Amino acid sequence: MEPRVSIIGLGVSDLERAFRFYRDGLGFPTSRRPEDGIIFFKMRGTCLCLYPYDKLAADVSPAFITPRAKFAGITLAHNVRTKPEVAALLAQAEAAGGAIEKPAQDTDWGGHSGYFSDPDGYLWEVAYGSFDFDEQGHLIID
Amino acid sequence: MEPRVSIIGLGVSDLERAFRFYRDGLGFPTSRRPEDGIIFFKMRGTCLCLYPYDKLAADVSPAFITPRAKFAGITLAHNVRTKPEVAALLAQAEAAGGAIEKPAQDTDWGGHSGYFSDPDGYLWEVAYGSFDFDEQGHLIID
Repeated sequence: MEPRVSIIGLGVSDLERAFRFYRDGLGFPTSRRPEDGIIFFKMRGTCLCLYPYDKLAADVSPAFITPRAKFAGITLAHNVRTKPEVAALLAQAEAAGGAIEKPAQDTDWGGHSGYFSDPDGYLWEVAYGSFDFDEQGHLIID
Repeated sequence: MEPRVSIIGLGVSDLERAFRFYRDGLGFPTSRRPEDGIIFFKMRGTCLCLYPYDKLAADVSPAFITPRAKFAGITLAHNVRTKPEVAALLAQAEAAGGAIEKPAQDTDWGGHSGYFSDPDGYLWEVAYGSFDFDEQGHLIID
């Protein structure tokens, strides 16, 4: 199995609301519209996809159509190259309709990070630290 | 905000078990070991990270230390270039300790896909369809 994730699929309760948050609020590019029933963002590398929660669960099997927990168990991190970008991106997400779950702060691993949740409660960490970036902006993992 | 996800963090109940599934079972490369307390895989683009569930929740805030639901609401897709790879990868995941949640089958969008769950129940779709791949193996989203 090649070491790559093609698509991260987020099951959302309101496709229009999630679309506006990610496209208009965060600025992620896409040619899709909510009336298409599914949104693919043109990300660098792994694609982010929005799809109605019930349909995503049903696409696996009926056994997965269950209530969501407060914490999915999965977080998405967006690493930035400068420390001030952490608070700035959290503020941008909040202005877009997200919520700051953890304000920007120094971490015990020597970095600086915070968390916001999207309108469905999915968690993004915005993080700064001693990471190296490749030419696409992806982390170089040693 | 640049359109990219740096890291997908999976909160796992047994770091050693998850490490063996992804490194030994699926073949994802890493220089980390469970005794490091956190695993970063060297993926193409977005990094996959394993971290103990309770610690990941606590890293957000104590409010997120809650029981997991059967369905996280998030799926990870791994797209392949040929149809037979779907069933083959599902079998590989099952042999590694995962479970086939949906056997390989034709889809209503003209593709062919199935789902497996990892030892923590996180869902991966293995999908084949009319997608184009870039030189790194990532999907080209129109």
